[in-house]
Amino acid sequence: MASFTTWVPGVEPDSDFSLANIPFGIATTPNDINPHAVTAIGSLILDLKVLLEHPGAESIFPYLKGHEHVLSSTSLNAFAELGRDVHRQVRSSIQDLLSVDTKQPEFLKENTALREKALIPLKDVKMSLPMQIGDYTDFYAGYHHAFGVGSMWRGPANALQPNYTHLPVGYHGRASSIVVSGHPIKRPVGQIIVDPSAEPKQPVVKPSQKLDIELELGCFIARGNEMGTPIDVNKAEDHIFGYVLLNDWSARDIQNWEYVPLGPFNGKNFATTISPWVIMPEALEPFKSGGIELEGRPALQDYLKQEKADGFFDIKCEIDLTTPEGDTTTISKVSTKNLLWSFPQMLAHHTLGGCPMRSGDLIASGTISGTKPSEYGSLLEMSEGGKKEVLLYGMDARKFLKDGDTITFRASGGESGNRVGFGECTGRIYSVVAR
Amino acid sequence: MASFTTWVPGVEPDSDFSLANIPFGIATTPNDINPHAVTAIGSLILDLKVLLEHPGAESIFPYLKGHEHVLSSTSLNAFAELGRDVHRQVRSSIQDLLSVDTKQPEFLKENTALREKALIPLKDVKMSLPMQIGDYTDFYAGYHHAFGVGSMWRGPANALQPNYTHLPVGYHGRASSIVVSGHPIKRPVGQIIVDPSAEPKQPVVKPSQKLDIELELGCFIARGNEMGTPIDVNKAEDHIFGYVLLNDWSARDIQNWEYVPLGPFNGKNFATTISPWVIMPEALEPFKSGGIELEGRPALQDYLKQEKADGFFDIKCEIDLTTPEGDTTTISKVSTKNLLWSFPQMLAHHTLGGCPMRSGDLIASGTISGTKPSEYGSLLEMSEGGKKEVLLYGMDARKFLKDGDTITFRASGGESGNRVGFGECTGRIYSVVAR
Repeated sequence: MASFTTWVPGVEPDSDFSLANIPFGIATTPNDINPHAVTAIGSLILDLKVLLEHPGAESIFPYLKGHEHVLSSTSLNAFAELGRDVHRQVRSSIQDLLSVDTKQPEFLKENTALREKALIPLKDVKMSLPMQIGDYTDFYAGYHHAFGVGSMWRGPANALQPNYTHLPVGYHGRASSIVVSGHPIKRPVGQIIVDPSAEPKQPVVKPSQKLDIELELGCFIARGNEMGTPIDVNKAEDHIFGYVLLNDWSARDIQNWEYVPLGPFNGKNFATTISPWVIMPEALEPFKSGGIELEGRPALQDYLKQEKADGFFDIKCEIDLTTPEGDTTTISKVSTKNLLWSFPQMLAHHTLGGCPMRSGDLIASGTISGTKPSEYGSLLEMSEGGKKEVLLYGMDARKFLKDGDTITFRASGGESGNRVGFGECTGRIYSVVAR
Repeated sequence: MASFTTWVPGVEPDSDFSLANIPFGIATTPNDINPHAVTAIGSLILDLKVLLEHPGAESIFPYLKGHEHVLSSTSLNAFAELGRDVHRQVRSSIQDLLSVDTKQPEFLKENTALREKALIPLKDVKMSLPMQIGDYTDFYAGYHHAFGVGSMWRGPANALQPNYTHLPVGYHGRASSIVVSGHPIKRPVGQIIVDPSAEPKQPVVKPSQKLDIELELGCFIARGNEMGTPIDVNKAEDHIFGYVLLNDWSARDIQNWEYVPLGPFNGKNFATTISPWVIMPEALEPFKSGGIELEGRPALQDYLKQEKADGFFDIKCEIDLTTPEGDTTTISKVSTKNLLWSFPQMLAHHTLGGCPMRSGDLIASGTISGTKPSEYGSLLEMSEGGKKEVLLYGMDARKFLKDGDTITFRASGGESGNRVGFGECTGRIYSVVAR
């Protein structure tokens, strides 16, 4: 491995996209309106399609021989399907090309023409969804969130169901409404109980008054399993392509009326936002961590037992709320280690009965909350179910989201100069005025 | 419209595939291993790819001009996206070609060479999934089923949640495990509570002992809606491509332990079977019907009000159970009109908050049960939750499915000679012996 210093100019020490990162994404660029693969370094993208089409690329990326087209594709699915070894090798070759000590200076570092063509300011490209998502599953592995919200909805005694500590609870989400960071979020209309004390209950149809966020980590599948053949928890990492930030926008009033007995539906399926960059497992390796340790937790079933206890990540997340007036407040800071179940455990459970995963499937962690209000991953928790105002910069306050509010998630690990960050996962709320 | 008598030889009067039907499917044939579009007439398929590639086809199918490739595609999605008018016209042209009074006898009826190439025994082709399914949603619109199962699981007083009569309750299902009729079904392994009286509850991991079926009607989307723009209940039929039979295989013991609070997961996602033929709305037009009329039902919200009361179908379904010994018993006969919510209402509700539908998305009705045990759509109901044996031909009996059992759904409407049937939706259970 070459030095972790890059020759690329203008890479700030606190950039999410240091040489230690090298994430993968899909973008259209000023010179190419067909979405294709790119990576990021500092405030630039490196166009991987341009790179792969350049004479000599075959000796830089020998393991892509016969598969060069995967980085010209409109999604990363075909690249993901090539498997972890190929991802590692491609990332490592890119790191070398961008390193001050590159072994191949003539290919990119000293090739002004190619540099001008392949390195493009991030602000000049348009990122799109990195994967074509087949199925999307949302788990509920954030113990502090599950306990907090369960307490609000069913009381502390029934906050967690008896199954919660035995299996990673999850539900099937909606793939068609997953959008990339920056896509505006329309406040959903739905059936809502305005007066919960009235019997019989009489819903009205109106825009959600309790529009909320959920901070989650998402995980993309590289290669699936055959239908009928479960994924071994200790081999599950081989099936993981990489990670994104995910905002599981939630309309609490719609959800509360609809969710029994079959789970959340219209309260969730109007939109889910993900960050555009898929962060590779290798980039997150330094941040491996244990998860939540729960006193008196029942023994795990064999299929959920991991040989190593470091199936989680200690990655610091932040939630910013920007008001329509433009004032930004960081309303939460929390680590992704606040989960009871790891992604390998989620995958082992999801496939236990034989359910097939496919390349591009998305698995989300569930809301990540810590134990303190400053670490909560949803407004529902911060506002104690809408009872309390969350104070914002500039004498403003929120219980839930207002039209014009922008929510931005950020997450990163590592020291200055070697930071591995996710980029932004952001969305702004709007309403259509009723006619 | 030409006469509803066909010149095709050997079409039995009780065939599902009379000239009144003309469904669409995807098959591989002895001469073409690439999956492509076909229709059925009697015990033959008519190869639509062969037909469209034949000289003169452009004058038979003028509205497919520039889109001929859609019937050579490996799924019907591109054909579905062309819209209802095109489906109607293509179906009508095929009906004319196959009619004794065809206006174009020289194209197919009197063209021995083309007949030999395009008409192939159904038994010689292999049907595959008709659509590439993006998202799959399973509703719960079978009122008698919901009430019956709800009574068992939560008692009659809490059988139906207060929301049930206000909105079509549904949940997101798993698209990756949907298989076509005939695909073997592996008994799923999962976490199961063997002793429900023991506290604290202690699950064990084993093959499901309560493997069940659910008789449902499925509906494929032709054209979707834009994210953020709901589908009007009175325009919803324009978005419907056609219908299939669906078996929502269910492991009741896995489901019962996992399903609170986020709904069914591994109890359902191991497999869902659909029949291979997409039956066109025009073919089902004669069977339009009202649904369940419920005394004291609360007034519908405007977005669920249909101008016409015939949003349902009166199609007779049968469930056959064939034992490993080969004995077949018809264990249920029920009409698809036993639903409280129509597909247009399901679509209007699903998209109320802006959730986008896409071509190829699948919507299922939920289990269709009548009011009597001979009309139940699941073994759970027939066996009263596993308390009672369901008697079979040959002194055999079942509470739930045994390895080697085959379940076959059939459904049809119409008189002899003009029947419109769905073909079979079948699957055989097997287990892998534990090592």
